[in-house]
Amino acid sequence: MTQTPKKIAIVGSGLVGSLLAIYLQKRGHSITVFDRRPDIRTIKFSGRSINLAMSDRGWRALSQIQIEKEVKKLAIPLDKRAMHVVGKPLYFQKYGKEGEAIWSISRGVLNRKMIDLAEGTGVEFRFEEKVWDVDLPQAKIYTGETEKGEWKAYDFDIVFGCDGAFSRVRHKMQRRSRFDYSQDFIDVGYKELTIPANEDGSHKLDKNSFHIWPRGRFMFIAMPNLDGSFTCTLFMPFEGEISFEKITTKKEAEKFFKTHFPNVQKEIENLTTDFFANPTSALVTMKCYPWTYWDKVALVGDAAHAVVPFYGQGMNAGFEDIYFLDQLMGQYGDDWETIFRTYQEQRKPNADAIAELSYRNFMEMSSKTADPGFLLQKKIEKWFAEKHPDKWIPAYSRVTFSNKPYAEALAIGDAQEEIMKEVMEVPDIEERWDSPEVEQMILDLLQ
Amino acid sequence: MTQTPKKIAIVGSGLVGSLLAIYLQKRGHSITVFDRRPDIRTIKFSGRSINLAMSDRGWRALSQIQIEKEVKKLAIPLDKRAMHVVGKPLYFQKYGKEGEAIWSISRGVLNRKMIDLAEGTGVEFRFEEKVWDVDLPQAKIYTGETEKGEWKAYDFDIVFGCDGAFSRVRHKMQRRSRFDYSQDFIDVGYKELTIPANEDGSHKLDKNSFHIWPRGRFMFIAMPNLDGSFTCTLFMPFEGEISFEKITTKKEAEKFFKTHFPNVQKEIENLTTDFFANPTSALVTMKCYPWTYWDKVALVGDAAHAVVPFYGQGMNAGFEDIYFLDQLMGQYGDDWETIFRTYQEQRKPNADAIAELSYRNFMEMSSKTADPGFLLQKKIEKWFAEKHPDKWIPAYSRVTFSNKPYAEALAIGDAQEEIMKEVMEVPDIEERWDSPEVEQMILDLLQ
Repeated sequence: MTQTPKKIAIVGSGLVGSLLAIYLQKRGHSITVFDRRPDIRTIKFSGRSINLAMSDRGWRALSQIQIEKEVKKLAIPLDKRAMHVVGKPLYFQKYGKEGEAIWSISRGVLNRKMIDLAEGTGVEFRFEEKVWDVDLPQAKIYTGETEKGEWKAYDFDIVFGCDGAFSRVRHKMQRRSRFDYSQDFIDVGYKELTIPANEDGSHKLDKNSFHIWPRGRFMFIAMPNLDGSFTCTLFMPFEGEISFEKITTKKEAEKFFKTHFPNVQKEIENLTTDFFANPTSALVTMKCYPWTYWDKVALVGDAAHAVVPFYGQGMNAGFEDIYFLDQLMGQYGDDWETIFRTYQEQRKPNADAIAELSYRNFMEMSSKTADPGFLLQKKIEKWFAEKHPDKWIPAYSRVTFSNKPYAEALAIGDAQEEIMKEVMEVPDIEERWDSPEVEQMILDLLQ
Repeated sequence: MTQTPKKIAIVGSGLVGSLLAIYLQKRGHSITVFDRRPDIRTIKFSGRSINLAMSDRGWRALSQIQIEKEVKKLAIPLDKRAMHVVGKPLYFQKYGKEGEAIWSISRGVLNRKMIDLAEGTGVEFRFEEKVWDVDLPQAKIYTGETEKGEWKAYDFDIVFGCDGAFSRVRHKMQRRSRFDYSQDFIDVGYKELTIPANEDGSHKLDKNSFHIWPRGRFMFIAMPNLDGSFTCTLFMPFEGEISFEKITTKKEAEKFFKTHFPNVQKEIENLTTDFFANPTSALVTMKCYPWTYWDKVALVGDAAHAVVPFYGQGMNAGFEDIYFLDQLMGQYGDDWETIFRTYQEQRKPNADAIAELSYRNFMEMSSKTADPGFLLQKKIEKWFAEKHPDKWIPAYSRVTFSNKPYAEALAIGDAQEEIMKEVMEVPDIEERWDSPEVEQMILDLLQ
């Protein structure tokens, strides 16, 4: 179905804002993107972004508008986790089946590319123009230098809020009655650090792995960049015995890295410098509802559903919002009210599900990945899934290597977890894990 | 412990703001109360307030500063529920033991009285002065005609946000990182209606009862006023089969009242007029944390923890905040940082508990109070509690007629509920409910 061209504002030129701009421009609308920050193509990176992991949902959204191949050139496939567990040699865990991988990409590099692509299709970008207010029923936006200063008004037909977890557009919706909203910070913060490339430009660690140093209450991860470096993130509680507040001197930082991450010893100088140069950031889960206002305003991506980063799905979920919106535009044409209503009704349960999965995954990444019982469980699941691919898709694969709804992944994952709990209680499961009895037991429990 | 006099601002002249003002003034501080609305003593009531039920926690806070007796003159004791169940004669349920009652009082009447009392102690009130911003670390507040207009700055030592569920002070705290916040609206709205007095000024229904017409998904309640009238509230879903959106004409309203509330037939003219004159309001649970900023700013009452009204504890919880804060002032003197930290740490779990209890109580009031099984269960609990007052205090009594922590009431209430579930499954419980076996069963389960 075609659509009558509309004058559309997008607030936010991040990944979701710029991808949505391309989609809408391709449907014949006229798009203006506002961003309070300068053009990311003109500035040095702030260093406050963890690298992103693009997975199937993200790629599908890019492939729909034929930009998947171009973006893939900027990304490195990771087909496994590299586990740096205390007292054990380095070992690897495949993420999925042969050929399945998540893709490491720098948020900054990707964002620059997306803005280039959007500009190429005719999207107008207005950087360093701050949106302070939105007239929801009129789809009017107000910009200005300061909140209290003079404002300029713009009239649009539709406004999309793609302005992230602290969205100004949502902020306006939030003041209305019957608008549900929550922001929940976790006690764990993060800090970005870097491991530079070797002198010949090669990577210092295996470049096709997502590296994890699980340490229980805290963890360290590393994802490769094209230039041979790794973007690392230290996740750690803000307060407590081992925490950000406890590391205040260079000496304490050195000791911390030496004690807990012995195999990155050579990088300590660099890590320690980064530690004090880069900010410690907080992690929030943000939920709200409704996501839309009549046929005038809609929130997309983090503005509607910000999640903690432990499932690597934040961007993928945002891109899937856009893919889904576009499908609805194809289906309902000019009936924007139905497009928006269906969008929020169908996406909301999935956004809640990925929020829950992401929150839980911190425990899985930081503690369980170092636990032999958990590893055995995953091994059994993998073995069974290979024998019965129609009966068992592991939750991680369902989230990462499929486009099935997140809510389904959460529900089926919980049911699988119940089954595995019983399986793990079989006496001598370590020896009998791949026996016909265990196979039959799982088959029975699946009934 | 005495305190060095401070210059303190209170934002909000509602019940909590004016009571806090009296407490602080009595401790020798100098208090200015700001309110964006006009002086409530000079205006007609808006009609948007359900009557309040003062219970033990509220009275303790008033009695601590010797104003309990004066306020009691404005209130009517209700020692029972009057149940108007379809197809049954009117029946009564005692709330507690002999002499225990909740007290019906008009929010407006009480608020006027409290402001009078506060003014009497030397508190300065600045009505119709709108607070737009708070400088948290400086305890500075900014007021003005409009948000974008010119502002006046005031310096204080401490600022208390008593500005209700949509607090401006909290709004400022909310923009900080690691501030947890949620607002959850329920699908049920409310509308205030009135049953006027008889011509001789007497009440048309029993005046010492809290009247309930439980109808499952909706309910009607009535609380007496001193002038012979009843303030009634209709709680009903916004949307759905029986809902506010379905009643759009006078005829529909008449039919609605006639069908569902046959014993208020004579009042229909009045109810119908009110129905269209008064707004339909939403009900929200609001939670946040932290409640304080250093030794500079603290949220008290609804600004920190707004609850739905179904346990009648909103005001009581706010007054208890103040009582508790005052105890801490006595204990810690000028160490406001410790006062504020202890206040939020100890009150937060109790605020969460009363939020949960209040939310659950809608179901209890609107559905269960009409269910014979539920009534039998309450009868058994009452019988057992009378026999073993040291072993069983019903949850309602613990919340309403004691000063024990709300969190304890919730936890113990849940444990009691588990026990009663088993008791209710005893065969022929209807006949055997007061038998020695059932008594022994409860005693055993309590172990």
